Amino acid sequence: MSYQLWYWPEIPGRGEFVRLFLEAAELDYDDVAREQGADALVEDLHARQGMRPFAPPYLIDGDVVIGQTALILLYLSDREGLGSGDLATDLKLMQLQMDISDLVEEVHATHHPIAPGLYYADQMDAAFEKAHDFRENRLPKYLIHFDNALAGNGGPFMLGEQWSHVDTSLFQLLEGLDYAFPNLMAHLQGSFPNLEALQGTIPDIEGVAAYLASERRLEFNENGIFRHYEELDQA
Amino acid sequence: MSYQLWYWPEIPGRGEFVRLFLEAAELDYDDVAREQGADALVEDLHARQGMRPFAPPYLIDGDVVIGQTALILLYLSDREGLGSGDLATDLKLMQLQMDISDLVEEVHATHHPIAPGLYYADQMDAAFEKAHDFRENRLPKYLIHFDNALAGNGGPFMLGEQWSHVDTSLFQLLEGLDYAFPNLMAHLQGSFPNLEALQGTIPDIEGVAAYLASERRLEFNENGIFRHYEELDQA
Repeated sequence: MSYQLWYWPEIPGRGEFVRLFLEAAELDYDDVAREQGADALVEDLHARQGMRPFAPPYLIDGDVVIGQTALILLYLSDREGLGSGDLATDLKLMQLQMDISDLVEEVHATHHPIAPGLYYADQMDAAFEKAHDFRENRLPKYLIHFDNALAGNGGPFMLGEQWSHVDTSLFQLLEGLDYAFPNLMAHLQGSFPNLEALQGTIPDIEGVAAYLASERRLEFNENGIFRHYEELDQA
Repeated sequence: MSYQLWYWPEIPGRGEFVRLFLEAAELDYDDVAREQGADALVEDLHARQGMRPFAPPYLIDGDVVIGQTALILLYLSDREGLGSGDLATDLKLMQLQMDISDLVEEVHATHHPIAPGLYYADQMDAAFEKAHDFRENRLPKYLIHFDNALAGNGGPFMLGEQWSHVDTSLFQLLEGLDYAFPNLMAHLQGSFPNLEALQGTIPDIEGVAAYLASERRLEFNENGIFRHYEELDQA
């Protein structure tokens, strides 16, 4: 039986971290809202009771129904035997995946610092200030953290020769940052050699290569998490 | 051997979610920075290499060293046999714990919407707007989510009669909200009956009762996550 992934059909967003892992591992899945539309997603989520996902993405696998990107990736990795085989190491990987989620939320806040429900145009002044702090302080702090983590095992991946869910997510993160902040990322080139090597290596994974060449891969756009607004990207 | 918890010694903050669970379960732990000071915490964290915690709190248990509040709680709960005993349900609990972490981050952003490294006084205008959206939109959406989740099993806890890490965290969250937003929370009284019942029941857990009466329990203050600023609490 294949996995069911529910996420907004028109943006890469947080769902793309799950899609990319599923594709890298060549797992069968239905990207349900891309077949049935966003209304079907809203309807499905609202019909769920009790301990339900707070927001997309969420994954269904038999009686397992879970939200939270990092948790979905932990579940898939564990179920498919794609972890490190060592609990202490798997926990470190999960922590890094959650660190990535935190950074993704900070990326979102660069263009929506006041209210996720308001338009960017209605919070541009605060966004300008927020993006400044992101570029100067927050992003470098996170990139050093991830680059140092990669350095520990000799690369190219977090575990060395074997890729994990953290590596595909770091690739997606870096692709998104290149799209949203091209000036900044050009300015930072050479500063995070382990991350750059990782970003160059992930597309060599067979499943990833096939995915990136397919129509299933969604392009970044200004409705998603990673948005390019020139005024927020002053290197 | 007892657990080592590293967190800032002067605030409840994110560390309190871990402390409260440890105390509720009556587990032995060293709250290391409360014995050795904040400098020791900074030194310990910076001396760690490779896949290390991004920020406090972090937990050490033999060769396990992990950050991220929700992950620490998942680890402790699993290791001590305090989960539901069912994988699909344990995953839902972890998702809810991660939802709580997301909300805690949104609480922090009400007073630090622009930059975590700047003072509140330097971002008050944006904070005023951010807190408005938090009170009107974000907080009610989360509280409905958690109240509905509690309703599923007949209460008072997420699993019914048996408390879990989600319940102690919801208690801490509600206590923090009562401290930071007393007018708002008074205004919302009666709207979330399952959460109110939970908040009233958690102090009956023997370990929690002893903890709340001890000097180990830190009071909320304006250096932590849950801060009371009158201008951000207009019901």
